[in-house]
Amino acid sequence: MTRVRLRDLGITIGRYKTGTHNSITDIPGVMVGHVTLSDKKENGCTVQTGVSAILPHPDNVFREKVLGGAYVINGFGKTVGTIQLQELGLIESPILLTNTFSVPAVSEGTLRHLLHQNPQIGDTTGTVNVIVGECNDGYLNDIRGLHVKPHHARQAILSAKSGVIEEGCVGAGTGMSCLGFKGGVGTSSRVASFGTEQFTVGAFVVSNFGLKKDLRPPRGDWTSCSEQEEKMPDGSIMIILATNAPLNERQLSRLAKRASFGLSRTGSYAAHGSGDIVIAFSTAHRIPHESPPHPKRIPFTFLREDGDTISRLFEMTVDTVEESIWNSLCKATTTEGIHGRVREAIPYDMLLGGTS
Amino acid sequence: MTRVRLRDLGITIGRYKTGTHNSITDIPGVMVGHVTLSDKKENGCTVQTGVSAILPHPDNVFREKVLGGAYVINGFGKTVGTIQLQELGLIESPILLTNTFSVPAVSEGTLRHLLHQNPQIGDTTGTVNVIVGECNDGYLNDIRGLHVKPHHARQAILSAKSGVIEEGCVGAGTGMSCLGFKGGVGTSSRVASFGTEQFTVGAFVVSNFGLKKDLRPPRGDWTSCSEQEEKMPDGSIMIILATNAPLNERQLSRLAKRASFGLSRTGSYAAHGSGDIVIAFSTAHRIPHESPPHPKRIPFTFLREDGDTISRLFEMTVDTVEESIWNSLCKATTTEGIHGRVREAIPYDMLLGGTS
Amino acid sequence: MTRVRLRDLGITIGRYKTGTHNSITDIPGVMVGHVTLSDKKENGCTVQTGVSAILPHPDNVFREKVLGGAYVINGFGKTVGTIQLQELGLIESPILLTNTFSVPAVSEGTLRHLLHQNPQIGDTTGTVNVIVGECNDGYLNDIRGLHVKPHHARQAILSAKSGVIEEGCVGAGTGMSCLGFKGGVGTSSRVASFGTEQFTVGAFVVSNFGLKKDLRPPRGDWTSCSEQEEKMPDGSIMIILATNAPLNERQLSRLAKRASFGLSRTGSYAAHGSGDIVIAFSTAHRIPHESPPHPKRIPFTFLREDGDTISRLFEMTVDTVEESIWNSLCKATTTEGIHGRVREAIPYDMLLGGTS
Amino acid sequence: MTRVRLRDLGITIGRYKTGTHNSITDIPGVMVGHVTLSDKKENGCTVQTGVSAILPHPDNVFREKVLGGAYVINGFGKTVGTIQLQELGLIESPILLTNTFSVPAVSEGTLRHLLHQNPQIGDTTGTVNVIVGECNDGYLNDIRGLHVKPHHARQAILSAKSGVIEEGCVGAGTGMSCLGFKGGVGTSSRVASFGTEQFTVGAFVVSNFGLKKDLRPPRGDWTSCSEQEEKMPDGSIMIILATNAPLNERQLSRLAKRASFGLSRTGSYAAHGSGDIVIAFSTAHRIPHESPPHPKRIPFTFLREDGDTISRLFEMTVDTVEESIWNSLCKATTTEGIHGRVREAIPYDMLLGGTS
Repeated sequence: MTRVRLRDLGITIGRYKTGTHNSITDIPGVMVGHVTLSDKKENGCTVQTGVSAILPHPDNVFREKVLGGAYVINGFGKTVGTIQLQELGLIESPILLTNTFSVPAVSEGTLRHLLHQNPQIGDTTGTVNVIVGECNDGYLNDIRGLHVKPHHARQAILSAKSGVIEEGCVGAGTGMSCLGFKGGVGTSSRVASFGTEQFTVGAFVVSNFGLKKDLRPPRGDWTSCSEQEEKMPDGSIMIILATNAPLNERQLSRLAKRASFGLSRTGSYAAHGSGDIVIAFSTAHRIPHESPPHPKRIPFTFLREDGDTISRLFEMTVDTVEESIWNSLCKATTTEGIHGRVREAIPYDMLLGGTS
Repeated sequence: MTRVRLRDLGITIGRYKTGTHNSITDIPGVMVGHVTLSDKKENGCTVQTGVSAILPHPDNVFREKVLGGAYVINGFGKTVGTIQLQELGLIESPILLTNTFSVPAVSEGTLRHLLHQNPQIGDTTGTVNVIVGECNDGYLNDIRGLHVKPHHARQAILSAKSGVIEEGCVGAGTGMSCLGFKGGVGTSSRVASFGTEQFTVGAFVVSNFGLKKDLRPPRGDWTSCSEQEEKMPDGSIMIILATNAPLNERQLSRLAKRASFGLSRTGSYAAHGSGDIVIAFSTAHRIPHESPPHPKRIPFTFLREDGDTISRLFEMTVDTVEESIWNSLCKATTTEGIHGRVREAIPYDMLLGGTS
Repeated sequence: MTRVRLRDLGITIGRYKTGTHNSITDIPGVMVGHVTLSDKKENGCTVQTGVSAILPHPDNVFREKVLGGAYVINGFGKTVGTIQLQELGLIESPILLTNTFSVPAVSEGTLRHLLHQNPQIGDTTGTVNVIVGECNDGYLNDIRGLHVKPHHARQAILSAKSGVIEEGCVGAGTGMSCLGFKGGVGTSSRVASFGTEQFTVGAFVVSNFGLKKDLRPPRGDWTSCSEQEEKMPDGSIMIILATNAPLNERQLSRLAKRASFGLSRTGSYAAHGSGDIVIAFSTAHRIPHESPPHPKRIPFTFLREDGDTISRLFEMTVDTVEESIWNSLCKATTTEGIHGRVREAIPYDMLLGGTS
Repeated sequence: MTRVRLRDLGITIGRYKTGTHNSITDIPGVMVGHVTLSDKKENGCTVQTGVSAILPHPDNVFREKVLGGAYVINGFGKTVGTIQLQELGLIESPILLTNTFSVPAVSEGTLRHLLHQNPQIGDTTGTVNVIVGECNDGYLNDIRGLHVKPHHARQAILSAKSGVIEEGCVGAGTGMSCLGFKGGVGTSSRVASFGTEQFTVGAFVVSNFGLKKDLRPPRGDWTSCSEQEEKMPDGSIMIILATNAPLNERQLSRLAKRASFGLSRTGSYAAHGSGDIVIAFSTAHRIPHESPPHPKRIPFTFLREDGDTISRLFEMTVDTVEESIWNSLCKATTTEGIHGRVREAIPYDMLLGGTS
């Protein structure tokens, strides 16, 4: 059965318009690539995992950095790269997502890619800060098998494209579970006018949190049936936010914080074992790696925050994160994983309320 | 017309039971006091404001401190006392709430109360850290008039009681507005079994955020009508969490962070100008001010966080914050303020969905 | 005996030049005012306290805000105003300093001053965030007497001036103790060329930390004698940093963090009970309170951080904080306080090493 | 020439006694292992790098976790594992240190080691949080060559021992530079009585920061000569703190913050490009991975912080970090690296002051 997006079910979230593709790629220049590893091995173990890459722009991100911020909703996670992001407010590499135990391999692969692309790193210039996030797909995927290799990171980066992107069981979302159903990759966007200008906010999520009992459907009410759900380790969610609004690093961190409001509306309460991490960036300015001669000033223009300006961007963020999560569920398909475990795709009528 | 609580409308939030009074005072020892200033002055200005005090226990809090944590959802606020709370993880004074410009007067009054109660402070022992939070009630209240005086803080503390407490237009909630309607004070609690023990989580809010368009009713769906709402400064919310679960200061800060999940579900997106601050404490341990001789060790027992333990407390927190906000709206009554402004009590059918 | 500054003793700190006055007022526009309360009351209690005000510029700071940052070295303190400063990166009031228990009175006085100066606050516009820091002068001052009144805050603000400012036992420094000797107010500055431009960094401290045993003199070595020092509550230090370098709020927070490096070099280890707080601002941009029509962008230029640019500002900060502390000791005079306690001025030869 | 430790030069730091070995291994159970890669390759490139491992105790750290804290002095660094450490306050793996670009390889190797040691990770239990820190040894080491492999991490862990440990050009310190001279690994400890008990604080550093001009020798004064030093990328320092004092996670974070005070005294001002990260842990409690049945309480005893208790631990921390850095310089030997670059060992008379 063909899986559709939330809006194809007649459900909208919030009061803002979406961008052209209702996708993080509606922010001009932003590209997304996936490598999907889905394979039943001869030895009986099943690989259901992958890598996703989000590129802030199509050029060399190390040489033309973007402003960024991060927010840790719940820190039971292994995301790397946030210390430097929070100190400097800069993103200088693609953002990679994968499963928990593949962070080292994907970090290695991304680093090698950047060393190859920039021969001066580690030689005539300093180092490079790689950002890799993760969720635990061990319910369906043979996560102990460490099937993701460094070259998969490079492959995900090189396959990145703009326009319509795949959702559901693809890339880092291949083996994820969400709200008791099959989760995965989802995306959405919002656009609004600010005087004579239009700004877009987009979200990209890998959803891997929650049980059926937690689900808060976007329409109607929902009461979980009494049957006992299988106890599972708490999941996680990785949320990437992009905007072309001219926000600085502090403002982007404020935006990142609002992602938790969208997350909450789907039913999450950020369970103890959940690694819920948000990375946000703006494409409005590019900061060259090479420094000009003194006085080394850089011109910027940033949005004022008052008068309903950043507040609307906050609201757009909340809505786009919520819809991205629903899209990840809507597009995911029933998946069989290790130990014969099966995670069902969510039945669409559950998003309209009812009892299970 | 008599105003009732959310549950009196047949609406429940979440899957946990409430405590006896569905109130923060269900945590044994926690007490709440209010001073309400509601007065139409002869000179035409209207006072609609007050002070609320939350006492972690009925004894001398300076001499028997409790563990606490704080979380800033959005920092457009003037709450005092969080720097020391975050450094030491201790609460050593009642928690006071009032309007934005009365924080100095209430701080002064609380300090004088504590100096009176503890002659050794500033003499043979060190200082004392007072916690005072605020929301901006300037829509209804003559906030520039600075009508709250230091003695009102003492009065609020001394009037504190356990059991059923007043909600709505009382104490710090007297002049507040929420989601386009009359806001104010609300409370709620949840209780659950953890093995052979039961732990309670309670919330106390002063709600002062959001416009009608933001409302997400607890039942049904809601689409704001097209009529333009009056532009207002962004509001705020103060959230106090109490529990008798043996949580340490880090765990209490985690609990505090979950308050934003309950807030989100009512429709807030933590607007730019909102001072959304959470203070959490546990009554499970009392830490004496006086130090024993060396080796100065203190015994504690804390909850483990795995195995659905703290996660259930998180979920209880989310639910109790959401219900506290609804209770603040349900119990508030239509109020007239300065410049003849009127803030209507929320019609109950709006909480069941529909269009305005 | 006339007390002189550190440089008058032939001691310099670091490799950078000072500004004209070796003072925070070397940053154009920055002004400092003091109100000193030094009085032996008839009832035997002694008042040794005061208020200091640092103005980022001579105009209306609410209407023309500056970028700012804060850093808590050790949070056993009662400074107010940092939550909003950290959320928005803006300073919109003078920065006031006083004793621990006078924070409410000084907050009230500063608020009243700002309400008077800006009739629209709390009426047609929102609220205002007041910043007040403190140290505990209870060793010499009758701190329980609450002798500072709201009008003293206004008086300190109105008395602010540029050029040479008083140091030692003045304003908020009147009753402070530092490294076992009389502490108080100190200031210093550094200036350096960045291409064709020059930028200045200035510090202003109220020093109130440490015992004789902790002293690390700027020249020579020092071993504390064996005699037992009087046990005292831990002190504190308030550090205000100003610069005309075009730094943004994140960069200013980085600068603020370096203040602890200067503090360390005088002998502090940020004792448990010390409230060591840093507030930093840049005068390079003024952000108008009133918003223009959409698109509401503001142009800025900020310094790049690489290539020895911000690193030199860091180094200048470390040096200027260290020298400010020494100046506070050098200029302070022997002072008698409550209970006949006397705090001696530091003998100058101790700054050149030796044993006590 | 034999290189000796700071105390062998007759220089002591601070007023506390050292532990038996003046080493982080004076905390009972703490072990340190090194793998050193020092090799001139045939193709002309030179490998000067390695891996160091600090084990909180000799047993399975995943199954018996310790309380920990972290502090980022300056975040231009790529340390992994701090997000979860800060959320949970737990260390559940050895702490590994290496060069900047080898973090992925060492993370992979440590993860594989832990998966091997604990077959239930990623199967019947959740994930594991690996902590790996780094400094940039690219001045001497062919860092782009990625010579550290995953198996070196395991080798460093398995080689860990208690008692006297190697310092200087060993393990992660092999290729590091500090204050213009050869840096590397250093360690130190302090012990003091707290009533009838004794507690030890130990530090372990990999020093890689600063230029000759920055040096502040522990004895005498120092003025850098006028000759221009080579411009270099800013370095870093990794600081690991261990104690057997019963401190909780918040207290350990406070301890971690004091490491910057010791760092400052050697001449660092935490330059822009420096990744200065502190990880602290206490061996006083072991927290089992397996949860008992409800009510899942864990008993602890923690030190009170008042009355000179934690303050003395702070002071011990400052001293031990400073001495660890001096030891790293004292023990390091002149080293030749890539491109024929040579980093000289510090002449001992420079630590006694003088001009270069």
